[in-house]
Amino acid sequence: MSLVVHKYGGSSVADADMIKSVARRITDARKKGTGVVAVVSAMGDSTDDLIDLARSVSSQPHPREMDLLLSTGELVACTLLTMALEDLGQEAISLTGSQAGIHTDTSHGQARIDRVDTARMLQELEEGRIVVVAGFQGITEDEDITTLGRGGSDTTAVALAAALQADRCEIYTDVDGIYTADPRIVPEARKLDEISYDEMLELANYGAKMHPRSIELGAVFNVPIYVASSFNQTPGTLIHGNADKVEMENRIKATGIACTKNVAKITVRSVPDRPGVAAALFEPLAQSGISVDTIVQNTSEDRTTDISFTVSGDDLSAAMAKVEELAKEIGSGALISEAGLAAVSVVGSGMQHTPGYASRMFRVLADGKVNIDMITTSEIRISCIIREEQAEEAVRLLHRGFALDEPDPADGN
Amino acid sequence: MSLVVHKYGGSSVADADMIKSVARRITDARKKGTGVVAVVSAMGDSTDDLIDLARSVSSQPHPREMDLLLSTGELVACTLLTMALEDLGQEAISLTGSQAGIHTDTSHGQARIDRVDTARMLQELEEGRIVVVAGFQGITEDEDITTLGRGGSDTTAVALAAALQADRCEIYTDVDGIYTADPRIVPEARKLDEISYDEMLELANYGAKMHPRSIELGAVFNVPIYVASSFNQTPGTLIHGNADKVEMENRIKATGIACTKNVAKITVRSVPDRPGVAAALFEPLAQSGISVDTIVQNTSEDRTTDISFTVSGDDLSAAMAKVEELAKEIGSGALISEAGLAAVSVVGSGMQHTPGYASRMFRVLADGKVNIDMITTSEIRISCIIREEQAEEAVRLLHRGFALDEPDPADGN
Repeated sequence: MSLVVHKYGGSSVADADMIKSVARRITDARKKGTGVVAVVSAMGDSTDDLIDLARSVSSQPHPREMDLLLSTGELVACTLLTMALEDLGQEAISLTGSQAGIHTDTSHGQARIDRVDTARMLQELEEGRIVVVAGFQGITEDEDITTLGRGGSDTTAVALAAALQADRCEIYTDVDGIYTADPRIVPEARKLDEISYDEMLELANYGAKMHPRSIELGAVFNVPIYVASSFNQTPGTLIHGNADKVEMENRIKATGIACTKNVAKITVRSVPDRPGVAAALFEPLAQSGISVDTIVQNTSEDRTTDISFTVSGDDLSAAMAKVEELAKEIGSGALISEAGLAAVSVVGSGMQHTPGYASRMFRVLADGKVNIDMITTSEIRISCIIREEQAEEAVRLLHRGFALDEPDPADGN
Repeated sequence: MSLVVHKYGGSSVADADMIKSVARRITDARKKGTGVVAVVSAMGDSTDDLIDLARSVSSQPHPREMDLLLSTGELVACTLLTMALEDLGQEAISLTGSQAGIHTDTSHGQARIDRVDTARMLQELEEGRIVVVAGFQGITEDEDITTLGRGGSDTTAVALAAALQADRCEIYTDVDGIYTADPRIVPEARKLDEISYDEMLELANYGAKMHPRSIELGAVFNVPIYVASSFNQTPGTLIHGNADKVEMENRIKATGIACTKNVAKITVRSVPDRPGVAAALFEPLAQSGISVDTIVQNTSEDRTTDISFTVSGDDLSAAMAKVEELAKEIGSGALISEAGLAAVSVVGSGMQHTPGYASRMFRVLADGKVNIDMITTSEIRISCIIREEQAEEAVRLLHRGFALDEPDPADGN
């Protein structure tokens, strides 16, 4: 029997009517003879409500307790969806992360899945039941409850699809699929029928709605991920690893434009140019849980160098406090910080092998009088750090500049 | 080290401030060098909110799903209390029913505890932690979550106290202790310093606030149970099995007056008087989950007899439907039902060995013009079924008639 894993986010199960609507969608899939495992997030804003409760009793809630508290949100949604399915005459059963065999490490609040023991799920599927799994959570070897952190339920869904060797993982959310750019910024943005894991990863890292983690997992285990709306029947976007096909299209177009706002930059001047100095700077930042994005180091002159890097605007003050400390130890010069920046990126497979992409990006931005502060590139992405207030205009300029508003000939429409 | 189990009901942890106040009470106990295991119920009305949610998605929620759903209420309260304790500088850890080793049978919604595996609790206590356990829940051998039904968190607390061989189990609630009668009905009711398990069981079965189940468990494992208010420091009531002490007081007084309202009576006329006929009537009722209380069978004449019994008013129509069916099978006569009744009881150890109790009760009720419909007695209780509208007046008359408003000489005050 074929098997699909569905995933429904919090906005898709925000109230009783929406839960019933999700139950009807799952029932339709099941009636086609497909086995279904459904992963759900907590209802609407209920996770935020639990966080508020925790803060009302404790100035710094313990991560272990926070995990057990937050895990209840998914349990509620998961049992309600199961009840709604049973009310439609379906055989269904809810499973906690633990019952679904999701074993994680002990990093409370950001646990990583070690393995999935599929025995219970397979048994329930064999008995003809729809299996509804609480997303975002797992259990440690000591039977403590963990949560997977941001993007957790997507990760649960892709991990279950991989472990169960499902035909595909379908992520139902409040958007219709993956677009060439954020449609709220670029009204003429087009929905993509398909996209490769790598491209999606770059888009996700630079502003698209999905969390990169589940896409990485999908890429590693080659799980096709279909992203579509839970509110309508419009076809969505298939994220897959059929690299040959993507290559064969041999398109000279970019796939999409991504944008991250609330970016801040820190520059450390006159850093002694000796081995290990970058590690001395960035290791302590990572240990403090501050995620560093773009890093640029200028060519060294007179045995010192300038290092610039970006962090989320939310982390700027914590990062500066840490860097001030480290700068003294390292013996570097002045610190400069700048908030109110954004990263805009052009993403597309094979960009590195196609001349002219980067120069075209710089030309488009220059023509739009957008000043570029930093530049980084990857195999399939070029990113520029610019002023935040110019970000949306830059996305629109690049979308037009790379002809993304024109139908893709490969789409056949 | 001495060890106490505390239990806090939903009204004691209804909001953040009350949770913090409970945390201070536990901290005070801990600071005296005592090990503490705290069992908590769901916050305020949160269980009712979850039931409403379930009903909004399903006309008849599956008991297994309902259990997993309801179990989240206690998890929330349990993690919040742990956070509040940590905020006061205490080492504390929350445990789910499963983590606390509470193994039950598979009767969802009304599971019974099979055994408590204390390993994890003992380990946490040994490491100096306050252990906060989610009440009302356990786990089956198949790792499905169960709930214990009415009085569940009290049962959890007493079961843990028994399994851990705690010095005592302290139930903190919204009343100051056990009274000679309901103080809302009898303003001059006195709080008892102590009461035996048996007496408390009769009071609980006949209207006092505690559920009989936890008291039975306390009696079997000889766990002293202390009932007091979580809102003040007033001394409460100790329920214990020191029968000698209770006997030695040799009191000629009753312990308390209990009252159950919303009682209904069913009379089956002309029941063939042959062996097995009572079983044929009451076994199917029990199997339908209808709890039968008082049963009276009149002396048999001409090979038939009349059987009367009481049920909760809520169960009357279901019971009548069942009895109509059974009456045909048995070949009995007319059925008569009557709602709007109440049971008033005088409870006291050694009543059966003290002449005059029953007649005194009947005299007090007769003087108050309260008509008695049915009478039953136990070792330590005499109950009369009367009209519900006379119930409160009857309780007041009996409280005065048995001199319960006068201080107990054994109390030393």
